[in-house]
Amino acid sequence: MNRKSTVIFSVLAGVSLASGSFLFSSAGDAQSIASGESSEARYLPEYTANGELVLPKNWRHWVFVGSPLTPNALNDGKANFPEFHNVYIEPGSLAIYEKTGEFPEGTIFFKELQLTLQGENPDGSRTEASGRGYFPGPFNGADVTVKDSKRYPETGGWGYYNFNHHEPKAMTASVRPKGECAYCHMASAKKDDVWTQFYPMLDNIAKKFGG
Amino acid sequence: MNRKSTVIFSVLAGVSLASGSFLFSSAGDAQSIASGESSEARYLPEYTANGELVLPKNWRHWVFVGSPLTPNALNDGKANFPEFHNVYIEPGSLAIYEKTGEFPEGTIFFKELQLTLQGENPDGSRTEASGRGYFPGPFNGADVTVKDSKRYPETGGWGYYNFNHHEPKAMTASVRPKGECAYCHMASAKKDDVWTQFYPMLDNIAKKFGG
Repeated sequence: MNRKSTVIFSVLAGVSLASGSFLFSSAGDAQSIASGESSEARYLPEYTANGELVLPKNWRHWVFVGSPLTPNALNDGKANFPEFHNVYIEPGSLAIYEKTGEFPEGTIFFKELQLTLQGENPDGSRTEASGRGYFPGPFNGADVTVKDSKRYPETGGWGYYNFNHHEPKAMTASVRPKGECAYCHMASAKKDDVWTQFYPMLDNIAKKFGG
Repeated sequence: MNRKSTVIFSVLAGVSLASGSFLFSSAGDAQSIASGESSEARYLPEYTANGELVLPKNWRHWVFVGSPLTPNALNDGKANFPEFHNVYIEPGSLAIYEKTGEFPEGTIFFKELQLTLQGENPDGSRTEASGRGYFPGPFNGADVTVKDSKRYPETGGWGYYNFNHHEPKAMTASVRPKGECAYCHMASAKKDDVWTQFYPMLDNIAKKFGG
């Protein structure tokens, strides 16, 4: 089975959605990307008429890349993200990355936040049948990153969005200023402002291309 | 967009594979399942002629359900699974579970083990730009669970397989005895021997059906 042929997404930017009447179509971008390196259909970023990003569809069917965890109990109760950071990449973008070693325009990363179940230990961990540690609990919002060099020139070519750090997730979100998210990505993330040092699946691909 | 219509897998049990000459076809089971509650194609368990389970294909394109973490440093250096437990469910099985509230025959869970990056702190954590915590490192083997009430009557209707707790993953594996895996699942897992108490996405579905 060819991995690239197995996932087909039926929505492309510009195709109508149930709630699509307020959406700004980015069909021009979609066409230029669709004619690129991959034959796999992609889910591309969707924006409202006033430029807000629409909550991406169907992210739990995207490709999981890793889940760093920085619990509050290990960060003086003030972790920026005390939850599991369940990070997904849009699979059509991944297919192109696998072929080229570069994240294409329109790449979307979705970071779904998931609280740990409350722990009885000082480090926030709890003890279950499988041992002492951290166990996934309720979902708690999401952050989304979109690559678009023309739209986000001030933040390294990526746009950073907060769809709430609680439930329910927002339906749309406005781009965050550089100091809030992009700064740290630009300073410390290994490859193209993406934390590939924590995502071996992505890092191994970069290494094939010398990155 | 209908989530259930978006992911199409082209391999069903019994369809030839590149390495398929040694495979035992379970097409009979596949047909009975394919005519069931869901219209979505499924990837079903494949067995060798001598009854070993074949390493499932393409699991990183399955649906991630959660990643519990029980680090060695919190378990006297002897955690059963010191890695992130990245657990996936085969998406065709999930589609049926979403409709029925029950895991159908042929459901596959794939637990990919992923070491944490080495930490400098006594609890095994390390400090990165995002804070102190646990960060994904190299992959480290996998365990797989398959539901088949007829094949695995002694272990609660599920078969438990170890595809190595190191890399590379084994290509095939033999079923594990009850005392090794099933016992704990049968004693403590919330729903049908699955740890839905740690996977809210699955637990929320069970709750809709009163489970």
